[in-house]
Amino acid sequence: MMDFFADPVPVTVRSLPRGFKFGSAACGIKKSGKPDLALITSDGAATAAAVFTTNRVKAAPVLVSRQHLESSGGVARAIIANSGNANCATGAKGIAASRETAAAVGRELGCPSDQVLVCSTGVIGLPLETDKILSAVPSLVKHQNSTAGAYESAARAIMTTDARPKWASASCRAGGKEVRLLGCAKGAGMIHPRMATMLAFVVTDAAITSRFAQRLLREVAERTFNTVTVDGDTSTNDTLILLASEASGARLIQRGGPDLQRFSRALESVCRDLALAIVCDGEGATRVAEIEVRGAPSDTIAARIARAIATSPLVKTAIAGADPNWGRILAAAGATPLPQGLTFDTARAEIHLAGITVCRSAQAHPFDESAAHQKMLDRHVPILVDFKSGRGRATLWTSDFTEEYVRINSSYRS
Amino acid sequence: MMDFFADPVPVTVRSLPRGFKFGSAACGIKKSGKPDLALITSDGAATAAAVFTTNRVKAAPVLVSRQHLESSGGVARAIIANSGNANCATGAKGIAASRETAAAVGRELGCPSDQVLVCSTGVIGLPLETDKILSAVPSLVKHQNSTAGAYESAARAIMTTDARPKWASASCRAGGKEVRLLGCAKGAGMIHPRMATMLAFVVTDAAITSRFAQRLLREVAERTFNTVTVDGDTSTNDTLILLASEASGARLIQRGGPDLQRFSRALESVCRDLALAIVCDGEGATRVAEIEVRGAPSDTIAARIARAIATSPLVKTAIAGADPNWGRILAAAGATPLPQGLTFDTARAEIHLAGITVCRSAQAHPFDESAAHQKMLDRHVPILVDFKSGRGRATLWTSDFTEEYVRINSSYRS
Repeated sequence: MMDFFADPVPVTVRSLPRGFKFGSAACGIKKSGKPDLALITSDGAATAAAVFTTNRVKAAPVLVSRQHLESSGGVARAIIANSGNANCATGAKGIAASRETAAAVGRELGCPSDQVLVCSTGVIGLPLETDKILSAVPSLVKHQNSTAGAYESAARAIMTTDARPKWASASCRAGGKEVRLLGCAKGAGMIHPRMATMLAFVVTDAAITSRFAQRLLREVAERTFNTVTVDGDTSTNDTLILLASEASGARLIQRGGPDLQRFSRALESVCRDLALAIVCDGEGATRVAEIEVRGAPSDTIAARIARAIATSPLVKTAIAGADPNWGRILAAAGATPLPQGLTFDTARAEIHLAGITVCRSAQAHPFDESAAHQKMLDRHVPILVDFKSGRGRATLWTSDFTEEYVRINSSYRS
Repeated sequence: MMDFFADPVPVTVRSLPRGFKFGSAACGIKKSGKPDLALITSDGAATAAAVFTTNRVKAAPVLVSRQHLESSGGVARAIIANSGNANCATGAKGIAASRETAAAVGRELGCPSDQVLVCSTGVIGLPLETDKILSAVPSLVKHQNSTAGAYESAARAIMTTDARPKWASASCRAGGKEVRLLGCAKGAGMIHPRMATMLAFVVTDAAITSRFAQRLLREVAERTFNTVTVDGDTSTNDTLILLASEASGARLIQRGGPDLQRFSRALESVCRDLALAIVCDGEGATRVAEIEVRGAPSDTIAARIARAIATSPLVKTAIAGADPNWGRILAAAGATPLPQGLTFDTARAEIHLAGITVCRSAQAHPFDESAAHQKMLDRHVPILVDFKSGRGRATLWTSDFTEEYVRINSSYRS
């Protein structure tokens, strides 16, 4: 796999979708004085689709953006995102803060405020200092531009505990033209499936109907962002947005066929790269494990087992220690909570760690411990668990659990 | 609450139930050379009850002990337990190892082998060196005795990553006599509800029918061992055994009434102390949180929410940092997975941290951060989450997540 433990390759002019501008600013929400405000605007009205968190506790910007997307009929001119404060558990004042932010951007761009989508990320439960955002908006809109540098700065402005910025690009032929896709994301903690994870924004100059855009985005999120986990905690602010400017001049993607297929593959490639970049940047992570479960009675059961393994602190600390301790993997699988009536047989279980068979028929299979340890020191550790009891399968990516993870999270605020 | 972060008070002659002997030995399973074999025997046939792990992967001693309890009709003469090797995922050889161990003890005691219960705890997936156990059994049985010192040594011989031994006693009037209960337990990692957690052995000189003993033990386990979690990982070897010798000369407890009630309370007291001793000895733990959920639509939903909060790495690291970061608690509650069709409202949620109100109506409630931090530095941090949406309630105890936890678990074997 690509090296997601390094900074992404720089954005080039040729990878920038046409029809967008980007801006960023340090408005003072982050105490460090680092950039904390990002703006993505479309020159004209763009088709917009979004997937939001499934957490029952939803942040104000999630509620406001969802409402805007509905009332605008899937059209947007801008995304404005702040880092440093999640604007979550902030009540009516929080909703007002997100609305005022959208209205301010709308005024500067000359568009209705429901064509502005709002995102926030950071600490939960602190009042958002809206004044700081509102004062920064006019200059932010004025200085935005369509350069690669402006894009990279915007992608950096949404970072919180991220060690690296995250972006990924793709292009494909769709609607008679070469169309470009460019996405950025933030996220390192509070990362877990059942979501459209964290903040991720994908812009494209393709032309696609709102209906297809929404359907594609949901399917792709399921296969990409929803297959990574850092700490099993699902955020209250998760938001994935796709904006399509049509500025490539390509024909509209409005039915199934090769155009839709190629575009879907390109979108999936961007989202997969961003999702892997997130898990590789998991708080304190030194390596990631790709956990593949096969041979379960159904895909649903396989997905539950994969999640139980991928969120087990004992499995995740063993990965940190490059310890071929497969007993913990088998125990985590065995304890997987399943809906009543469902179960699976563990008696034929096989486990392969970093390509080495360590368990057959749910029993130890002789292997060279020190060779396995050496292989597990790699950044990418494939773990295959095959129950040989059916066709169900699932794959999840998980980061390791290190002392650094604890250091980061036991001193985040106090 | 009692200080479970310290060694238990010494066992006294007056707290020792009559009719039992205890032994321990270092047979060489632990590489450190520390004691790794414990024996508890009843002078006559004792009434026996047990609760075992719900993990689908069950260790050989769990399968063998369950079978012995059935075939003996709930009667036992001995428990033999080894530490250092879980004898799990060891196939037919593992089953044979547990059977041979029981047979050897039975030969020495002159009882059928199905009156011997077998337990193992330690690493999963390594062949058990049965020869070492078998060679040690004759001397173990020969040197056992009924002193407090022998009991304490046996309780220490079942320790693995435990920092402290764990025992607890109680007495009550039942069947016309003062009867005594004395329990010991081991466990610090792979601790999570849905179990009869880890190894725990309670002996009493009361007289109780096998049917009542089994029913009581299951109920009490639900209210004690099943309310603590260290890392969310359910062991493959969890076993809780009760042996009743009748040596107090008390009348048989064979129906409901005051005798059963008093005995039940005494048993619950012993099991609760052992469960709290386990969570306070959680690997790397510096403090424990008592997570109480109230006002949920049902007890089932309350229990799910409490578990989601108690297993969230972000909540557990915040507790390690004594950080009043209630947003993580609200987010973990909001993301609680529930069976389809069930849900709950978070809008009226109130959160009290160490007695300080930090959240009302799912919004920040002004509080003194540094005072809250000071209070959370206590060993025992009560966390109350009230949804004000019903009568459902549940309480769970969880240890904090520290760098030491990661250190212990990333270097366990390699």
